[in-house]
Amino acid sequence: MKSTLVTYFPPKVQKQLLENQKNIQGKPYEKYFNPEMEVPVDLIKAIQFGPQAAEKTFPPTPENLNRLYADLDNFPNAYYGAADDGENGLTTFNICRHFFPGVTVKMMQWWFTWHVLEKERYSIWFPYAHLANTVVYPERMTNPDLSYEEKLYGNPNHIVEYIGNHLMDAVIHFTDPTQLGLDKALLEKQNLTFSASGWSHSYDTPEVPNALMLHIGRDVEGGFELYTCYFIGAHTVLSQYSGISGGGERGVAGMKSAGITREFMEDNSYEMAVHDITEFTRLGSILPQLYAEFGPK
Amino acid sequence: MKSTLVTYFPPKVQKQLLENQKNIQGKPYEKYFNPEMEVPVDLIKAIQFGPQAAEKTFPPTPENLNRLYADLDNFPNAYYGAADDGENGLTTFNICRHFFPGVTVKMMQWWFTWHVLEKERYSIWFPYAHLANTVVYPERMTNPDLSYEEKLYGNPNHIVEYIGNHLMDAVIHFTDPTQLGLDKALLEKQNLTFSASGWSHSYDTPEVPNALMLHIGRDVEGGFELYTCYFIGAHTVLSQYSGISGGGERGVAGMKSAGITREFMEDNSYEMAVHDITEFTRLGSILPQLYAEFGPK
Repeated sequence: MKSTLVTYFPPKVQKQLLENQKNIQGKPYEKYFNPEMEVPVDLIKAIQFGPQAAEKTFPPTPENLNRLYADLDNFPNAYYGAADDGENGLTTFNICRHFFPGVTVKMMQWWFTWHVLEKERYSIWFPYAHLANTVVYPERMTNPDLSYEEKLYGNPNHIVEYIGNHLMDAVIHFTDPTQLGLDKALLEKQNLTFSASGWSHSYDTPEVPNALMLHIGRDVEGGFELYTCYFIGAHTVLSQYSGISGGGERGVAGMKSAGITREFMEDNSYEMAVHDITEFTRLGSILPQLYAEFGPK
Repeated sequence: MKSTLVTYFPPKVQKQLLENQKNIQGKPYEKYFNPEMEVPVDLIKAIQFGPQAAEKTFPPTPENLNRLYADLDNFPNAYYGAADDGENGLTTFNICRHFFPGVTVKMMQWWFTWHVLEKERYSIWFPYAHLANTVVYPERMTNPDLSYEEKLYGNPNHIVEYIGNHLMDAVIHFTDPTQLGLDKALLEKQNLTFSASGWSHSYDTPEVPNALMLHIGRDVEGGFELYTCYFIGAHTVLSQYSGISGGGERGVAGMKSAGITREFMEDNSYEMAVHDITEFTRLGSILPQLYAEFGPK
């Protein structure tokens, strides 16, 4: 797929790049830190002609998610917009498909357990926008007796990163995708053996789940297919996904009292789409060599 | 110079593109309206590593401007930042050099008198970001007895356009560059025979000049060189350039009471830099053919 240079980085993230550039000096993986970022032309062009019309969007209910992942041939290249579900909530509407030549499920799983041990590792993923990512139980990540799932699930990631011009300070709870509405049988049928999916909340408000993110993928001929979704905002279904009773409802009430508009959500959704395309394109491009050098021998 | 696709347009301007796309249908110059925008790699990369350090910036005094235009060999590729002149003011700091193969001073002068007669003409310059531009005396623009300067000067342009995500509604007073601090002898020595330069104010506050913009250029072997500067914000020297006694001082007082920061100015400056690079690259690329088709026969 033809790629093109990313032409826009807000001044705040440019300053972060210079900071990250200093911090990474001397790290053994320093050469993977590259400020010249690229994105696939097809994906970036798919989000340059306005947000998805309201009638083409949908909220993150289990029914909708299973319908989306049941038809991977028609999984959109890249969508952004806002999903307005009335009294039930309002979220961003982000869907994107990626293909990474030479990458495997194994490499992706390794990445999600390897990068969290040093913030400089996290920074090579998106040199301009990534500040820090730490987990509650780092020792699990290097324990050879634990599976990928045992390392990642129940081990919250505290991430600090710029999404567009906005500094996000959040906690992601990675968990089994079946806890996030997806059918086990469907995932098996589609051979979707990779997942780094979860729900999240702002660092300061653990009682209000405010996002669902799905990073689900599979090995295919020649590489790895990744199917991502982000629904950021407020929705009652987030109570179910997070297991926090009344949490989604608190989000909906808070959003209503703050007067959050559809347009605000579309802006956030666009920034999230640009971020997703930029960071995963970078990860896909460095992962085979990075894994060969630093992965398990 | 190698060019690359522009990868970022905020949702608001994407919606404006769709609106402009409808409006231009059927216009004889419709084919020049192209949403696929490109920018020179050298220019866009020059503004991806943070704003200029404070000590490298300067306010728009006549001394500084003449020093800048006296040394065109060392005119920066692209600078952005904030010029903090203490009690005298705070402005953006935008400097950029462009080269357009096949373009001439004559074509540029024609463009600045031709495009203001229909908003759709203005939109081909920047299909995403340009809404409207009108002049007080449109009949002057087609009067064959008037020189370029007689058409443009004393004939304020009311422009409405997005700079980044911000809708700017302003009036530009194009005027002789010697009224804007530049030495006549210097301009002649450098063969800078083109100028579309002026000061401007927000549409609603004509008594507060809030920007100086210089678009100054010359014919060279193979094309046209354009040297642009923007100092947007507040500075006492704007009283002199605009001829509005106390106008610059009112701007400085207003900015102080609003608590405008250097960082805010840097953000605005970056958006202005991206805008300038995008719109002039487009203009330079379409102007030879557009002039051949619609210019004077």
